[in-house]
Amino acid sequence: MKIAQIAPLMESCPPKLYGGTERVVSNLTEELVRLGHEVTLFASGDSRTAAKLEPCCAGALRLDPRCKDPLVYVMTMLYCVRRRAHQFDILHFHTDYLHFPLFADVCDKTVTTMHGRLDMPDLPVAMREFSMMPLVSISDAQRRPMPWANWHSTVLHGLPPDLHRLGNGSGGYLAFLGRISPEKRPDRAIAIARRCSMPLQIAAKVDRVDREYHEAEIAPLLDDPLVEFLGEIGEAEKDVFLGNAAALLFPIDWPEPFGLVMIEAMAVGTPIIAFGCGSVPEIIEDGVTGFVVNDIDAAVDAVRHAVRLDRRMVRRRFEERFTAERMARDYLAVYEELLSGAFGGRSSRAEMARAAD
Amino acid sequence: MKIAQIAPLMESCPPKLYGGTERVVSNLTEELVRLGHEVTLFASGDSRTAAKLEPCCAGALRLDPRCKDPLVYVMTMLYCVRRRAHQFDILHFHTDYLHFPLFADVCDKTVTTMHGRLDMPDLPVAMREFSMMPLVSISDAQRRPMPWANWHSTVLHGLPPDLHRLGNGSGGYLAFLGRISPEKRPDRAIAIARRCSMPLQIAAKVDRVDREYHEAEIAPLLDDPLVEFLGEIGEAEKDVFLGNAAALLFPIDWPEPFGLVMIEAMAVGTPIIAFGCGSVPEIIEDGVTGFVVNDIDAAVDAVRHAVRLDRRMVRRRFEERFTAERMARDYLAVYEELLSGAFGGRSSRAEMARAAD
Repeated sequence: MKIAQIAPLMESCPPKLYGGTERVVSNLTEELVRLGHEVTLFASGDSRTAAKLEPCCAGALRLDPRCKDPLVYVMTMLYCVRRRAHQFDILHFHTDYLHFPLFADVCDKTVTTMHGRLDMPDLPVAMREFSMMPLVSISDAQRRPMPWANWHSTVLHGLPPDLHRLGNGSGGYLAFLGRISPEKRPDRAIAIARRCSMPLQIAAKVDRVDREYHEAEIAPLLDDPLVEFLGEIGEAEKDVFLGNAAALLFPIDWPEPFGLVMIEAMAVGTPIIAFGCGSVPEIIEDGVTGFVVNDIDAAVDAVRHAVRLDRRMVRRRFEERFTAERMARDYLAVYEELLSGAFGGRSSRAEMARAAD
Repeated sequence: MKIAQIAPLMESCPPKLYGGTERVVSNLTEELVRLGHEVTLFASGDSRTAAKLEPCCAGALRLDPRCKDPLVYVMTMLYCVRRRAHQFDILHFHTDYLHFPLFADVCDKTVTTMHGRLDMPDLPVAMREFSMMPLVSISDAQRRPMPWANWHSTVLHGLPPDLHRLGNGSGGYLAFLGRISPEKRPDRAIAIARRCSMPLQIAAKVDRVDREYHEAEIAPLLDDPLVEFLGEIGEAEKDVFLGNAAALLFPIDWPEPFGLVMIEAMAVGTPIIAFGCGSVPEIIEDGVTGFVVNDIDAAVDAVRHAVRLDRRMVRRRFEERFTAERMARDYLAVYEELLSGAFGGRSSRAEMARAAD
């Protein structure tokens, strides 16, 4: 199949450091190539891929200090894709709703994975207006604010199985990995670690928008000798960081659409203690790959149980449920159903939502 | 002629308070209707117009606290315009570069007025990629960062002649009107007023991005008994505010693309003392409607001369050069030349710039 993958341009594919969407696009692209498909990746020019790379800006825009308006590059990329649309069987977009107007007339050969949270006040306007665009969610929970939208499938994310290897958790610490932000609740992670009297290692970036939160709420908590703050770490360091951890803490307080770090932990065999928001119950098998909890007390209890879970079983469940190959085959099934015309599309649910508005 | 005017949605047409682009779109739209054309205005639903209003969101997005992502509404508006493009002779866009990808294939019936400053690092990428889109600048100076772009004309802004009436400047104060921001240099206005020992009245909004600048740099200067800070004022109040002023201070420090307040002052007969950046020398006739200066000393001198200028002559030059009718007729000439095919378009300059890149 001739497939175009259209990535956001904020990070390279894969990202140098943090960056969920572009990492998934990269995993999917490389796996589709491995499975024998002819893939073109529209992405930042510093991306690395076995597909044909169509560079749409010199480097990842988040890390380019000269870039003030990333939208310029996204719009020129979309125009480039539109002119070449006839060269592909399927156009797979990861660019939120930005391509909808330009591709509405060829919607039947497009699929759009929504990567973000959907409880945004303005998004339903776009989803109703462009109800012809087939959508994929990254968890069932993600759909909750807009169950009426034109969903084709949920495709859970996947990782290359050889990217991480089984660790033994011998570091004896709890791990927190991601962003310092109120949604991710690093304060809860610190509280849990203190209650367990276990060391906590925090590997996280601090976005500009979160600097104030970090200074006011988190920085004062980092004095604790149990807590170590490592800053942002790269892909290569995750293996050791996660693999040596006794457990990953994921005490989120928002409707997490997926949460890649959970399957990264599973890939190294590290069990996860997660608060049951958003996608969490779809990803963690309670008592097998970790524990789903709803308060600090339960999280502290769960840490004690988690360290006794079979790490090889955690890794095995990763291999069964969250590899890039499983993800790529799921997407290929989506592409094939769309191209066969079997998907009703433009669902009556969306029409009804529009009528009811 | 069947004309679509496509406005940004941040403000209504006309805006309730501050807002340059939507005010110009409104002036142009109403004048085109008055001249007998069939005009459809794509704008926020709280706009007021004699044209056919196509509401693209309930109310002005800047003032809507529920709106987090204005782009959703712009994209759905553009899609709506695209589907109806065949119903119009000309599509006149005021939406920066956002419509370029969707209208590149019908570029010959479009014109885009660039309303902002153009010395932005990413914009040339869009201007090269979409070099087929005919552009109008709002001053010749605005073009300086991109002289090679596909410019058709410069059309200076205009106001309805009956919107403001000749004032007598009897308030004896200097006026500053606009935004509190480093580009507008209210600090210079205060320094000039002090040196002249004349009262200064400041009518200005403080945008969120400028709050820090206001608190740190400007608020401490407002204690001076010569200085009065009035906050943001509406259209109806400008007549009195500007008409009673001895002169308007416009001591800017940025490449001002147009500067509507200068022609508002001219409409009430109030001379302007302006620093010679950007569009200023194209708008002010030195010694007739005001003075173009380059430092505080010259500005202080100019105030003494300005109060002796003939206010009726200032108003007369406004009527000769800056009415909405003159603006509308200029734009009609642009539309007609584009539709006749006489405009070469896709200029070789843009092609050369691309080649040289």
